[in-house]
Amino acid sequence: MKQPIVVLKIGGNIINQPSQLSAALAYFAALPNPAVLVHGGGRKADEILQLMGHAPKMVDGRRITDAPTMEVVAMVYAGLLNKQIVASLQALGCPAIGLSGADGNLIQASKRPAGTIDYGFAGDVEMVNAAFLEQLLTPRQDYGQEQCPIICPITHDGQGQLLNTNADTIAQAIAQALAQNNTVSLRYCFELPGVLEDLHQPESLITRISPGDYEDLKARGIVAAGMIPKLDNAFAALAAGVAEVIIGNLASLQAGSGTKIVA
Amino acid sequence: MKQPIVVLKIGGNIINQPSQLSAALAYFAALPNPAVLVHGGGRKADEILQLMGHAPKMVDGRRITDAPTMEVVAMVYAGLLNKQIVASLQALGCPAIGLSGADGNLIQASKRPAGTIDYGFAGDVEMVNAAFLEQLLTPRQDYGQEQCPIICPITHDGQGQLLNTNADTIAQAIAQALAQNNTVSLRYCFELPGVLEDLHQPESLITRISPGDYEDLKARGIVAAGMIPKLDNAFAALAAGVAEVIIGNLASLQAGSGTKIVA
Repeated sequence: MKQPIVVLKIGGNIINQPSQLSAALAYFAALPNPAVLVHGGGRKADEILQLMGHAPKMVDGRRITDAPTMEVVAMVYAGLLNKQIVASLQALGCPAIGLSGADGNLIQASKRPAGTIDYGFAGDVEMVNAAFLEQLLTPRQDYGQEQCPIICPITHDGQGQLLNTNADTIAQAIAQALAQNNTVSLRYCFELPGVLEDLHQPESLITRISPGDYEDLKARGIVAAGMIPKLDNAFAALAAGVAEVIIGNLASLQAGSGTKIVA
Repeated sequence: MKQPIVVLKIGGNIINQPSQLSAALAYFAALPNPAVLVHGGGRKADEILQLMGHAPKMVDGRRITDAPTMEVVAMVYAGLLNKQIVASLQALGCPAIGLSGADGNLIQASKRPAGTIDYGFAGDVEMVNAAFLEQLLTPRQDYGQEQCPIICPITHDGQGQLLNTNADTIAQAIAQALAQNNTVSLRYCFELPGVLEDLHQPESLITRISPGDYEDLKARGIVAAGMIPKLDNAFAALAAGVAEVIIGNLASLQAGSGTKIVA
């Protein structure tokens, strides 16, 4: 019995703006299908680190997660942000339940081996417990209520260590794991209406990208930097059985627009 | 079908000492019955508040939860502590799932009205969603795995606001709610072997306290200060159908000793 499931990922730039976050949560709460939300981190962790006199360390846009940073991201992502989002969704009538990768052994990851760069407590996803998610998403005959999982980008290694994992990657891994038994729509919500031919022209939206288009866009330098890992994730998800991947901002997702990634 | 359930509460003094916390989690993971863990806060929230230049405010041993304090306790209790405990339990093979009162609408509370003292975002428990806990604690025929809820002392008001609630009170409220359909043993684990005739003499343990004994102990000044709300909670839990309440440290609980509160 394949059921349709939406996996919505909201990025840090949405989380940093209360009005955008509220609008994104209203969209999520109103989705007609069982749905999973994956949220990023936003700037709060950096604010706390700076207050602690511990300057955030980034290399090529990726965070170096040393021990104090791991404590702070666990606090901010799994504590403050996740619980504020869950409380807001509950107020909208959405049966939200907040989870890290440690809860219910949802996502096991392995600490990334130190190479030329030591990313510290960065976790690469090894296993997603799809049966646990399906258990939450499926109403029980004896209890009746399904739950909407709200997932923060914290994982664990199964040996007691929490790890910091990229939220886009978590959304992709969750979508792929659920795609074995369900029809999954993976939606990345960020600050742009989708992939643009010209970053300064919202009307230059590219509505469909096939693998061939993607090679062409990369060769022409239209997609670069931060968009490449997002699109790599999207094509990997499609290849692993996810039914559709859409990238856009809240307005484009609500309008059924955005950039659709196709196999 | 009344099933036996243990509700174990571990206090802040246990959480502050890694070796004691490890031992308490090993005890919890080895309990033969379905079990719920409620944990307190410990001193980490105060450390973070002080780093932020925001001195913790207490009146009569109770925290004044202003807005910045609410953010910090949500971070530390629901984020760092709860997820570290869950990851540690998962490493012990315990199917732990961390929850705040917002998750699954587990505990709704109301903000305490400001009287002579304004406690800020302190939440008084209004409702416990026992059906949700029972759903987690009961293995599903179709999925098989039960979950052990690990509950931090953060609640919500159902309107989107997180609240800070005393962990002893949460343990009592959870035990009472589960007692409607289950045989509940409520165990408070703190730093002493139980209620003592003489605080400096561990061998002066009082093994049983009835309501009559309690009045006598209060009149003689043997129980005072912090122990009174604990014992009030314990008698309230018994009156509401909890099968037994035991107060002790880890060694006494493991030995089946401690102070047993009896109706």
